[in-house]
Amino acid sequence: MSVPVAGPVLVIGSGLLGASVGLALRRAGVQVWLDDTDPGAVVEAVGRGAGEPWRDGAGAPRLVVVAVPPQSAGETMARASAFAAATVTDVTSVKVAPLTAALDAGADPTRLVGGHPLAGRETSGAGAARHDLFDDRVWVITPLPEGDAARVASVRDLATTCGAVPVVMSPEDHDRAVALTSHAPQVLSSLLAARLLEADPDAVVVSGQGLRDMTRIAASDPSLWRAILDSNAASVADVLEAYSRDLDDVIEQLREQKDITAALERGVAGRRRIPGKHGDAATAYDLVPVVIRDEPGELGRLFVAAGQLDINLEDVRIDHVLGKPSGLIELSVRPEVSVRLAEGLRSLGFDVRA
Amino acid sequence: MSVPVAGPVLVIGSGLLGASVGLALRRAGVQVWLDDTDPGAVVEAVGRGAGEPWRDGAGAPRLVVVAVPPQSAGETMARASAFAAATVTDVTSVKVAPLTAALDAGADPTRLVGGHPLAGRETSGAGAARHDLFDDRVWVITPLPEGDAARVASVRDLATTCGAVPVVMSPEDHDRAVALTSHAPQVLSSLLAARLLEADPDAVVVSGQGLRDMTRIAASDPSLWRAILDSNAASVADVLEAYSRDLDDVIEQLREQKDITAALERGVAGRRRIPGKHGDAATAYDLVPVVIRDEPGELGRLFVAAGQLDINLEDVRIDHVLGKPSGLIELSVRPEVSVRLAEGLRSLGFDVRA
Repeated sequence: MSVPVAGPVLVIGSGLLGASVGLALRRAGVQVWLDDTDPGAVVEAVGRGAGEPWRDGAGAPRLVVVAVPPQSAGETMARASAFAAATVTDVTSVKVAPLTAALDAGADPTRLVGGHPLAGRETSGAGAARHDLFDDRVWVITPLPEGDAARVASVRDLATTCGAVPVVMSPEDHDRAVALTSHAPQVLSSLLAARLLEADPDAVVVSGQGLRDMTRIAASDPSLWRAILDSNAASVADVLEAYSRDLDDVIEQLREQKDITAALERGVAGRRRIPGKHGDAATAYDLVPVVIRDEPGELGRLFVAAGQLDINLEDVRIDHVLGKPSGLIELSVRPEVSVRLAEGLRSLGFDVRA
Repeated sequence: MSVPVAGPVLVIGSGLLGASVGLALRRAGVQVWLDDTDPGAVVEAVGRGAGEPWRDGAGAPRLVVVAVPPQSAGETMARASAFAAATVTDVTSVKVAPLTAALDAGADPTRLVGGHPLAGRETSGAGAARHDLFDDRVWVITPLPEGDAARVASVRDLATTCGAVPVVMSPEDHDRAVALTSHAPQVLSSLLAARLLEADPDAVVVSGQGLRDMTRIAASDPSLWRAILDSNAASVADVLEAYSRDLDDVIEQLREQKDITAALERGVAGRRRIPGKHGDAATAYDLVPVVIRDEPGELGRLFVAAGQLDINLEDVRIDHVLGKPSGLIELSVRPEVSVRLAEGLRSLGFDVRA
């Protein structure tokens, strides 16, 4: 983080994202006004320390952050253009639709710069806001062709002041990217889970961890996802069509008893493209499998041991059988510490399988 | 577990599965002979306590368990039919192909009963064998139409003596079931991961946890999976064809801006069919989200606290951003203890988001 974004900043929408932006900016000493159609939300966000309540005539914001639900983001951005000097940005998870709506409603394209911080959605409301919600998260910034470089820089400053990592791309590239990495996977997961409806109950008894992983997001809220997919339908359909062609090729290869190794190898290579820390090349973690007894406290003993060895666990997977933990725990760690972890755990009496 | 399986049992193949069968049977006091084309494997398994080495003329096994690689399972089962009184079973992960190969090589269909214990594959070799490898695992038993009921019961006894939960189905139903729950998901994961190869590096920066989950198994060994998929190609192609039709329907709905809620809701319903403990109706766990600092020992502190509250964690997910843990940990617990966990952790100073 270098210089904090130049304020004052008006945040319209005082839910989880808006209040978290306020908290992150206040942490850096930036002046923040908070607004919301629900006065109670403003009171809650102000109470959390996310800024002062906005009042008409309170002053002239340098930057307006629109953090309202997607369906009203465009219109709200257009109204925010009334602050003649202000740069206007948003935090909506798709970009073409709200920006188009804003322009259609009369927003000034030179002052409009879209944004999408990739932050958690596990909760909602100002009560759940966190000053560190955006720390180390990607914050995509999507300027329009007419976008002014200084205003793009201002939104970039907003992202870094909030602790995030700014990544600039066009609104169209953004929507294609989230179609590939988020929206199409949601559809593919739902369709796989739906296939289980036609299966014999006995057949589903043989479900393993792979199916569990592949269908986890299929449990997500259909109405929420319907709205997201609707707002990015063309890009999602493009990704799914390319996928469908690949799928039909593999089906033909299986029918003709041809070798499908190449398709599987492409999968291994593609998986490696999922990025590591701060957008570096993908970090391949080492897996250290450990078998523990299925009792309260056993997992704690294992993680305390890892902490004592001063090793940070990057990920943890508990293998399941019949919906129940199997006792096999897979610890993911950076490759340079995996041998030390395995040997350290073994010397503490753990049943390490590496 | 009731009465142990009637021995003596001859286990042919002394790798992970064979030696684990031996250990589990020895635990129950059953007499076990071990054989392998590699004498060193027998020595290792015997050294682990999995049984005695087989010698020609040592006696007459009541049951032969064939635990050799899939490509030689059929032929080995046929040779095992030479033990005139013995029931012959195997532990191969597909069923139609090895049983057909066994019959083609002259196996006695009345004494042949296929088997498939769904056990971990994280390691290999007798050195990794465990007496509890099959505890609470499903062990699918696949009699032939000619199969003798007493011999099917004997293989069922083998499964329960090993601590597993026997499930009987036809070889064809088994292969369709694993095509749906394991083999087709592997192909779908590989194809999704492969799509990332054509993406702009910047696009992949927006990858989230959903994509990570969906592509995890795409990192699996292509040559291993090629062999599995080859051995069950027709059933896998059937599942993928049905999936492809569903996918094309959704693509059309997206192109025509139609409502895709129904497809998403079918996914939610299908996900619920993945079974809970011992094949009961699916256990829906409650999620308790907790935010921790990204430091060694923090995770340990959290799990020790859960252990002190005497609450067993069913699953743990660490949310990732840019390949790095985000500090958001999702604990899965049985619904009846989730409030107690959330309140208990809060009272210990944890930042619980439930």
